[in-house]
Formats: sequence, C-alpha cells, structure tokens
Amino acid sequence: MPKALLDKVTVAIGGATGYGGVELIRLLSRHPGVRVTYLASASSAGKRLEEVYPHLAEYGSPETLDSRLQALEPKAMAEAAQVVMFALPAGKSAAIVPALLKADVKVIDGGPDFRLHDPAAYPRWYKFDHPAPELLKEAVYGLPELHGEKISTASLVAAPGCYPTGALLAIAPVLKSGLIKPQIIVDSKSGISGAGRTALSLPYHFTEATEDVSAYGLPAHRHLPEMQQEASLLHSGGKSETAITFTPHLMPMVRGIFTTAYADLAEPATDNSELSTLNSQLTDCMKQFYAGSPFVHVSEQLPHTKWTAGTNHAFLSARVSADGSKAILFSVIDNLVKGLAGQMVQCLNLMCGFSETAGLEGRAVYP
Amino acid sequence: MPKALLDKVTVAIGGATGYGGVELIRLLSRHPGVRVTYLASASSAGKRLEEVYPHLAEYGSPETLDSRLQALEPKAMAEAAQVVMFALPAGKSAAIVPALLKADVKVIDGGPDFRLHDPAAYPRWYKFDHPAPELLKEAVYGLPELHGEKISTASLVAAPGCYPTGALLAIAPVLKSGLIKPQIIVDSKSGISGAGRTALSLPYHFTEATEDVSAYGLPAHRHLPEMQQEASLLHSGGKSETAITFTPHLMPMVRGIFTTAYADLAEPATDNSELSTLNSQLTDCMKQFYAGSPFVHVSEQLPHTKWTAGTNHAFLSARVSADGSKAILFSVIDNLVKGLAGQMVQCLNLMCGFSETAGLEGRAVYP
Amino acid sequence: MPKALLDKVTVAIGGATGYGGVELIRLLSRHPGVRVTYLASASSAGKRLEEVYPHLAEYGSPETLDSRLQALEPKAMAEAAQVVMFALPAGKSAAIVPALLKADVKVIDGGPDFRLHDPAAYPRWYKFDHPAPELLKEAVYGLPELHGEKISTASLVAAPGCYPTGALLAIAPVLKSGLIKPQIIVDSKSGISGAGRTALSLPYHFTEATEDVSAYGLPAHRHLPEMQQEASLLHSGGKSETAITFTPHLMPMVRGIFTTAYADLAEPATDNSELSTLNSQLTDCMKQFYAGSPFVHVSEQLPHTKWTAGTNHAFLSARVSADGSKAILFSVIDNLVKGLAGQMVQCLNLMCGFSETAGLEGRAVYP
Amino acid sequence: MPKALLDKVTVAIGGATGYGGVELIRLLSRHPGVRVTYLASASSAGKRLEEVYPHLAEYGSPETLDSRLQALEPKAMAEAAQVVMFALPAGKSAAIVPALLKADVKVIDGGPDFRLHDPAAYPRWYKFDHPAPELLKEAVYGLPELHGEKISTASLVAAPGCYPTGALLAIAPVLKSGLIKPQIIVDSKSGISGAGRTALSLPYHFTEATEDVSAYGLPAHRHLPEMQQEASLLHSGGKSETAITFTPHLMPMVRGIFTTAYADLAEPATDNSELSTLNSQLTDCMKQFYAGSPFVHVSEQLPHTKWTAGTNHAFLSARVSADGSKAILFSVIDNLVKGLAGQMVQCLNLMCGFSETAGLEGRAVYP
Repeated sequence: MPKALLDKVTVAIGGATGYGGVELIRLLSRHPGVRVTYLASASSAGKRLEEVYPHLAEYGSPETLDSRLQALEPKAMAEAAQVVMFALPAGKSAAIVPALLKADVKVIDGGPDFRLHDPAAYPRWYKFDHPAPELLKEAVYGLPELHGEKISTASLVAAPGCYPTGALLAIAPVLKSGLIKPQIIVDSKSGISGAGRTALSLPYHFTEATEDVSAYGLPAHRHLPEMQQEASLLHSGGKSETAITFTPHLMPMVRGIFTTAYADLAEPATDNSELSTLNSQLTDCMKQFYAGSPFVHVSEQLPHTKWTAGTNHAFLSARVSADGSKAILFSVIDNLVKGLAGQMVQCLNLMCGFSETAGLEGRAVYP
Repeated sequence: MPKALLDKVTVAIGGATGYGGVELIRLLSRHPGVRVTYLASASSAGKRLEEVYPHLAEYGSPETLDSRLQALEPKAMAEAAQVVMFALPAGKSAAIVPALLKADVKVIDGGPDFRLHDPAAYPRWYKFDHPAPELLKEAVYGLPELHGEKISTASLVAAPGCYPTGALLAIAPVLKSGLIKPQIIVDSKSGISGAGRTALSLPYHFTEATEDVSAYGLPAHRHLPEMQQEASLLHSGGKSETAITFTPHLMPMVRGIFTTAYADLAEPATDNSELSTLNSQLTDCMKQFYAGSPFVHVSEQLPHTKWTAGTNHAFLSARVSADGSKAILFSVIDNLVKGLAGQMVQCLNLMCGFSETAGLEGRAVYP
Repeated sequence: MPKALLDKVTVAIGGATGYGGVELIRLLSRHPGVRVTYLASASSAGKRLEEVYPHLAEYGSPETLDSRLQALEPKAMAEAAQVVMFALPAGKSAAIVPALLKADVKVIDGGPDFRLHDPAAYPRWYKFDHPAPELLKEAVYGLPELHGEKISTASLVAAPGCYPTGALLAIAPVLKSGLIKPQIIVDSKSGISGAGRTALSLPYHFTEATEDVSAYGLPAHRHLPEMQQEASLLHSGGKSETAITFTPHLMPMVRGIFTTAYADLAEPATDNSELSTLNSQLTDCMKQFYAGSPFVHVSEQLPHTKWTAGTNHAFLSARVSADGSKAILFSVIDNLVKGLAGQMVQCLNLMCGFSETAGLEGRAVYP
Repeated sequence: MPKALLDKVTVAIGGATGYGGVELIRLLSRHPGVRVTYLASASSAGKRLEEVYPHLAEYGSPETLDSRLQALEPKAMAEAAQVVMFALPAGKSAAIVPALLKADVKVIDGGPDFRLHDPAAYPRWYKFDHPAPELLKEAVYGLPELHGEKISTASLVAAPGCYPTGALLAIAPVLKSGLIKPQIIVDSKSGISGAGRTALSLPYHFTEATEDVSAYGLPAHRHLPEMQQEASLLHSGGKSETAITFTPHLMPMVRGIFTTAYADLAEPATDNSELSTLNSQLTDCMKQFYAGSPFVHVSEQLPHTKWTAGTNHAFLSARVSADGSKAILFSVIDNLVKGLAGQMVQCLNLMCGFSETAGLEGRAVYP
C-alpha cells in the first residue's frame, strides 16, 4: 500500500458505535498515519458520533475523523477507504468482505467470521453457513506475536477473540518449545465490557454484575475452537490436536482479562532445586519468545489487569506448581484493546508498513 | 452443655473488631440461644463497639450483647463465657486456648492455629512453633459438612480457612466417591474482605484494587496444607497424599469466593452420550452428599457469588469438560460467613445442641 | 386486626419479583408474626420464586412463605391474605386497591399511587388520571417517624419514595422547629438499585454505570411533589408552600441514598461561638425529634451509606455552614429497605400491633 | 523560552511516584515538545520507575523520559530541566521553589503552596508559615480558562486544586456575568484517587470505600479559600467577598469529580416561559465564556464523569430550578487530569508557546 508513504491511509470502521468501534475511533484518530473517512453504524446511521457518545463532542478534524455515522454499505466504504476495519457481531462481516476485497480494499475483521480455517466450524459454533469459505484459507489469524509476517502481506486479517488473545499469549512460548504437554486448562477472568454495549441483559445490569463473580459459557464457549486451532499449530504445526479446557468467568470490572493457564510439565520437577530451575526456564522461554514484541512484557511479579487499562500491552508471568508437576501461566490484557481494537491497529500497522506501535503509544491510565 | 436448654449460652469473642469479629457480633446478637458477654479487642480495649463501628450505634441489649471492648484476657473471658470464639491472626489463639480448655470453656477458633494435625506444619507454614501441639490431635476441623458428628462433641474446633471451605465443599463428594483422581487444580477468586480490616496495604487501597484482577500467594499459599490434609482424608482416609495446585486470585469486590476446581475424571467420557451421563453423575453425587446439609445447594445452573452475600449458604455445580476428560467443580460462598463467622456459628450450634441453622436463617441481601 | 394476636398475619406481595418484592420476601419470611401466603408477579406467574431468584433455592416453609408466583389478581390476594403489600410501578396498584379495601384487606403500597393528597397531581406527575381519587384523603403517608399514629389505625398506607424518605428524615426536625427557612436544596446521591431490576437500559448497564457519577431528573423529578407536600405540612401544617430544589444523582453502587440538604438558617450565626452553639442546636433538635424512633440515629460524625446496607436504619447529622448562614443536613438510608421494603414492614408492624422493629432486627452486613 | 522552538523543553517532575506524578509522566512522555529529564521521589529515590509502577516496565526512551528516580534536590533539578513540575503534599514545594526561580527555572506547582494570594491564609488553612510570601503576589493561579494570558508569561504557576477546578469552571461564566448572586453552594462528588496513593487509611481501604458514599471536610475544607479567592475575583474583581458553602463527598470510583453548584438567580423566573428563557441564557452564557477553550464543552445534556476519564476535558451544563429561583450548575472533570496533571501540562503549553492541547489530545478511555 504505497499510498501510506505518500499520504495518510484512509480507514473505514464498520460497527463504529459498539465498544470495539469507539475504541478504534479513539486509537485511530490519534494515529499519525491514518485518516478515518467513514464510520458505519447499522443502528445509528444518520446521526453524528457525538449523539451516541457525548464524550466525543467537538471531536475530530477533517485530517483525522469524519464523524458522520453512515450506512454499513460496502460500496460506499470501498470508495471512502483503503482499509476497512470491522467490529461487528458474528456473521455480519462475512457477507460484506468479498465485495471489499474485490474492490482492492484491505480488511481487518475484529469478529469471528474469518478466524477459523475450517468452514465446518461455522455452522457448529456460530450457527451460520459461511458465505465465503474460500476466503478462510486466505485470511490470516491476526495475532501479530504469532503471525506477524503473514499479517504484513495479508489482504484479509481476522483479529483474534479477546479470550484467545490472552490464552495464546500465555501458552504460546512454552507450548511451542515443548515444555508443557498439550492438555491445557484455561481459566479466564474477564471484565464485563466484553459483553458489548448493545446487548442489555440482566447479567450485565449494574446491580446484578457488581459485587459478583460467575462462570459461564460451558461446556464450550465459542472462543474454544480458535484456541484449539492455534494451540495445535503451535504444538505440532497443526498435525495433532490439543485438548483445551476453557472456563470463562465474569469479573465485576469494566476492562481486562486475567488468564490463568495450567498444563502438565513435559518433565516435572522432582525436588526444590529442579523446581526453581524450571521456574526460570519457563520465564526465560517466554522472554525469548517475546524479545522482539513491543507490547508483551514478561515479569517475575504476577501481573495485574490494571497495568493494561486502555493499552495494547500484555504482561505475562510463569510459575511451577508447588508439587513441581505443572506450569501455571499468567497473562493480562485489556480485552477491548489488545483483545480487540488495539490488536486490529497493530495489524493495520504491519499491513501498511507503519511502526508496529503507531497510534498505540503510551501506557495505562493508572490508577 | 445442658445449660443451653435452661438458658442462653454465654459467648466471648476474641478479636471483636476485625471483620470476622464484627460478623460474629452481627450473627450472634440475633441468635436465639446466645448471649454475647465479652468482646475482646487487643487494639481497641477500653472503647465501646460503636466507636469502632458507628453502624452499631445504640445496638444490642443486656440479653444479647455487652458492647464494651475489653482485653484479650483468657481468665476474664473464661469467667464471662461458656464458649470463646476467636477471629484472630495466626499464632494469637494458640497461646490462650489451653488455659480456656482447662477452665472448661469450649473454644471455636476461626484462625489457623488448630487446623493442621501435624505440629511440624506450623513452623513451615506459619513461622511459629506450636505452643500446644498435644491439642492438635484433639482439635476438630470445623467443616460441619465433613465432620459434623465430631464437631458436636468437641471442646476445641478449628474452623477452616475461607479458601479451603470453598474448595473442599466443591471437591469433597466426587473426590470421596472416587469419581475424580486426586490431582486437583483449585483456581479461587476471592473478594477483598479476606484481607481483613487492619492490614492497610497498597494492594487493598481502593484505587489499586478496584477495576483489577490479580493472582498472589504462589508457589504455596498458607491455605494449601489444610486443603491437602482434608483432601487426603476424603480420598484415602489420610493414607495417601493428594496433589493440589492452588491459585488464589483477588477480585474487585468485598465478599465472596468463587472456586473453580479441575480434576481428571477417573473414567473419562469418550462420546457425547457418556459425557452427558457423567455430567448427571457428578451433580447427583454432590446432591446426595449434601442431602442433609441445610446450607449447601447443588444446582444445574452455574452459581454466582452474589447468591451468598451475607449468608452461610453455599451453591455448587459440576460440569464435565468439553473433551470429556475432566470434572469442573464450582462453588460459591461468602468468605466472611460460610468462610469464617457463619461457619463458626454453625459449629457452635452443633456443639451446643441448637438447630444447625439457628442464628443463620435468611438469605442474601440481594442485589 | 385481632387475628395477629391469635395467629400469624397473612400477607400477599404484589410485585414479588422486583427488587422491592424480593426485599419484602427477605424481611417478611423472617418476621415472627407474618406468613407470606401469596406472591403475585405479573411477569413470572406460573414459575416458582427460585426460578427467578436462584439464591432462594430451597427457601421458605409453609409457616413462612408460599413460594409459588401467581397472578396479580385482587380477589385471589384478598382470599389469601389479611394484608397486601405492593411494590409495583406507578399506576399499577391504584386500580386494584379499591377492591382489596372493600374486601376488608389492609393495603401497604410501596408505589406512588396513594402518596399525593391532590388528585390533580397524578396526571401532572405520573401521567394518569387517578381511578380512586376519594381514597387519596384516606391514605396515610407511610413515614412512621412523621405519621406513626395515623399509620397504626390506617387501612391504606402509601409508603414514601426512597428520595423523599432520605430528604424528609434529614429536614423534618429543623423545618418543623422553625430553625430553617422553607427554601430547601436537596442534593441526593443514590445507588443504582433504585432503578429496579426489569428496566434494562443503557445508563444502568454495568460498563456505563460503574466509575461514573451523573445527575438526572431535572427540572422536576417525580419525587418532588411528595417532598413538597410533606415539607409544607411540617413547616406550616400545609398552609403555605415550601420551595424545594431537588437534584438526584446516580452513584456507582447498588444500595444507599446519601442526602445533603441545604437551607438558610432562620437566625444565622454571626461569629464562631454562635456557630458552635447553632451546630449543637441543630443536632439536639434532631436527637429530640427522633428520641422514640428505633431506626433513626443522630450522630456527630458524618454518616456513611454503608452503615445502613440491608437495614431499616437511618443515620443523620447536621452542620452549620462555614459562613454561619446555612444548615447542612445529612441522612443515609438503604433505598431498598428504609427507602422501600423495610419501611413497608415498619408500617405493617404499626398497623398490626407488632413491635415496631419486628422482622427488622439486626444491623448492616458490614463491610 | 525560545529553546522550545529549537529543541524539546526539558522538564523535571517533583513527586514522581504519587498519582499526580505518574499522570504527569503519562502525559509528558507523549508530549511532542517535552523531554522528561529528572524524576524526583522522596520516598523511592534510587529505584527505577518500573519498580514502583510495574505497568511502566520497558517504558520511555532517552528522547522522552529518564526513568531513574532521584532525590528531590533543587540544584540537580535546575541543572536537568528548564521547567520543574511539582505534585507534592502541602508545604513541600514552598521551600524549594525560590531556589529554582533564582536559577531561572520555571515552576508549575500542583500543590497549594502558591495558590493563595494572602500569606496569612497558610498558617490558618495549611498549618505552616509561608517561607516565601513575596512569591505569592507573583504566582499565577493556573486555571487557563480564567488566567490564560497571565499564565503564558508567568515563571511560577500554581495549578488549582481538583475541587476548585470543577467548581470554578461551573460557576465562572454566570458569576462573572452577574446572572447569579455571590452566595453559592458547591456540592462536590469526588472519586477516591484524590486521596492519593501513599496515605493508606481506613476510609480508602477497598472494603470500606466501595459501595459507600460519605461527606467529609466540614466545616471548611482546605480548598474553600481558593474557591473564595477566585469567586471574589470573578464577581467583583476581588473587591467584595463571596460566600461559598462547600461540601465534598467521596464516591466509590477512582476518577472524576461531579460538581453540582446552586446559587440564587439575580432575577428569578416568575413563570414557565421565563424559566425556559433563563435556562437558555445560562447555557449561552457558559458557551460564550468557553468559546475559545479547547477543553471545556457546554452541553444541553447533563454530564457524566465517565466522559472525562483520563482526559483534560470538562463538560458543563446549567439548569434553572423547578421554582425558577436558582441556577443549578454542573461540571465534570477527571480530578487527576483537568484537576491536576493535565491542567499543569495545559499551563506548561501556554508558558512554553506550545499548542494549548499538546500532549493532551484524545478523549476518554470509554467505557
């Protein structure tokens, strides 16, 4: 996309008024190489952005943001933008993407429509037959720490779900290196913004959700097949399956996913000195894996979700269990940034030749 | 204690101004068979209760509560009360209990000083040599759902820690029945009141703790040996060890512990129909085990901590993992009630011949 | 109601599955003199209580609670109960109450349908013509601290709104005594449970409501006319109007209303010694006014809403402003208890000759 | 400061590890014209920033931030920086500032030491005799919306307290224009981060502060004299006093101050049409006053603190009370940004000739 070198890249956002969309707007309108030229909102087309989000009153400028909310119309989006970024519910982007690609527009999809390589997975997990199964081979799973190179040349990137992002960042190094066995328990704790803005239902009502912790999504949450697909790739290049047990929990907070993953060590520690050695080995393995990743930090200290609020950063830690048998792997991310909009911008940066951190500078608004 | 039949049982509370103490006061002052005759507070002796807790202004009556805060003095406590209930930090009650027992006073200890049967565990886990190791054999682990009969005739009861209560309630039925293997992962999510009232430290500062989830206490939290002791008893009558991997997490809420426990099924499911059968088997096993327990409820629906707020009730659920290999066991409790003060009152009821639910009636303040 | 002396009073609850209804159930099922014989729920008739509120699984007994959810049907309710208590939205009870009264059933209405004496106020403030205007004269405003005597002989009691309860408790003593002028600013801060359970709307969505404070209801909230009616009665026996400026605010918490009321002192302080004298005078005036009220506590210390959580208690304070010109009057209540269900039970106690505190014993679940 | 034109302005931060300090770091390290060359921390000198704030691991670069924590040493700070910005408790900067000014360093003080023009106010309100009273005449009150011009040429700027910022923004336009009388009630609702990071005390303990609202600081909070000083300037150029009644409240949230101010209208409305006209007049007056202010937005809709999270923006609204007698003026700010660090950066921008919004771009991290 040589235009990026000459001028700003033009971007359209599909699903601009959801929490993912408004995060894209927040990040892209400060991005030095981007101009947001089209905001599509099925529910609010015809309004202006600040009518839906009053905190964006008098925001944006012709150089950064066209704040009209328009129809989710592929032709208009293709005319307005070089890249289209979607933050839509399952099944919504699949119908539109082929037309965009044909019009030579690059697509970064924040939804699940192009994450799974196997077309048969869609009716099973998402209850729709995929309208463009041929694109599933072409689409790249947009986790830059795993697939950075492919993302940089892709036309269609499917950004991972928030839970898989947290889980895969935690397990990738030690799974790939063979330090753990491929039976993994992923116990995830998420803030409530993951449920989105428009689905007003009782469990997300303030009075019900605050001062409460619960689990949901069993036996099998929709994010499980992504985890399995990518874990299998890490473990055996996709040749053999991995067994992931995934339990998502809701936490009484807005943002953040804390992932605690458990797996048997390939070679358990049999005494304290081995345990200590293994501890270092796990941490070193993580540090090495993410040495070139500007957003992933491996620390001795167990991480806090608050460290990531509003940012694309992830913090990881590893511990051997007290009995020496298991690796316990920790990660924290902001589910709406590294788990959604920020990751999409990171992909955009790779696809357009920007610095990987462009528009994603800065750290948590703390406390 | 036949006096209970004639008159009210007199109770002294040691550690009355901590969160455990004030919960004991809340519960006991409405208990139909109890008169609280002595409140001991090392930090606030000489004050009145309402100076420390203004919400207790003009509270209590001679028949229910003497609201003076007095010294933590065993002789005075023995004179004032038939039963002494302690909610003190580790190492504080062990020095006092022998004198109380000698004075024919019954003791219910909410701290860890008499929970572990092995004296050698104290220097290792709690950094003190136990001053009365002979009592460790006599003391009964105060989890009524496991040791109700022994509790009812005991003079010294050691109420379990909050995390072990949640974990043991979840795993006891299926571990005892042999449905799961004795390698268990306990992933616990606790509200912040577990940290108590007086230890003002940065992680519990509102601005740091709210909108945050973190893990702590690794490699081995002090509540681990209790879990192992009791799990081993359940599994093999204490003959062989169990391996528990325990990871406590802090949640941004006041009350509640959500426990998610994972263990390999003794006989995994190999197809969907077996999986469904196993699901029912796990639930039925739990239901049967707790059939006579007024405070433990087994439900198909995954539980919420909010269901337990302010009560001695626990809600449990069980699921087989998506791949059929594991049991996932859930429990919720209020850490300050079933995890501390309520459980102590439940033990008191058994020890004094009251109805098991006396003083513990009612359900959650909801929402 | 002589039946109360012989046996338990039978009570029906209209609107049993809202937050007000479930609070009535919580309080009444532990009330020593009450049997809840009928739960009416327009939305959930046919279900059982525990299907809507799983925390009430295996709850109640024939002596305390019939947990079937039934139709909101006056005839059936009159057959089942001596007293009907309503926790319904505006306009719902007015249509039913006449039939109940005719059937010699006493009614305690938690909604606004019988609070205002002036029929013309209903179309203006609640957008409906009152179907039984003649009952507005008969109905007693159910704030026991102001109208205890009338309540005890009433057949129809209209329990106040949550905001008016907090405001009137704070201002009543000093307004009645003439210490302040009748132009009063009421700045109220409420938890979100006041919005109820069923009205799922964006402002009460967890992600929107947490970490947020806002004001609403201007220029004139529906609770304003009650405040004016009662303030005018306090000030001049209803002969002259008072001017109340009322601004409700939403706080990111479940329960509690903190009221800060401001009014010019009838005789301002002109120096520090007068200011100090006036301070005591305000506090003493409050203390004297509430000397016989078991639920109202006047303290030197500024109150906290947390002191009231789950209880029918109110805490009040008063201060003279730094410049000596104004009284600042504070109150805290639990909006769902003293602001709704607890107050209704307090009225029931007066109407049935129970102790005023029956079923309302105990203090806050703290912290 | 012509150096700004040639190169980046070098800035030292005094009090770098408090919440104000870490906000300055967050904002300045993304400021295009600034290099942070010195972080002073009395409590943590010798450590690195990321040891105190792990979320800042691997943060900063030589061009933006020297992340060593050093002594609070004026000489070293003057050598390292052209501008020193303080976020220190009361009484700490006054002793250091004279030396810095002598060394030709500009100072922006976030504390109260130079806010009040009257030296006699310091022993009264802050319990210390001012060591440099002659500087109080020179220091400019750093509220750019009121004193922008003076700030731009000042050497010493005293940024306002968080409460005064919220209050003055709300009342300035209508007070200056004479639309309201100068007797004003300021009812402020603040998040808990205003209490800072190091003062660990019981009221800010998570379990005590969450689910609670309270008032404090009566009869006279330290922020009152600033409000009076500036209100008097607005009303009469400082010739006559204004009477402000100020009641700060604590809200269970991290960030944000919601200010509700009440004042009698100079000319009350006597009917509905006048009321409506006055409503527009108040809003228009505000809009006009802030027409040139990039951070202040006047809206018809009542504002939410969440709109400002992490930003230097303020949202205002105005309403006439239902009886036509009073103006009700609303403002929301983020207490740590517009109420502290952001305002200091805004002052820096004016003092150094940067764009007023430099380093303060972007909007709330929402939700």
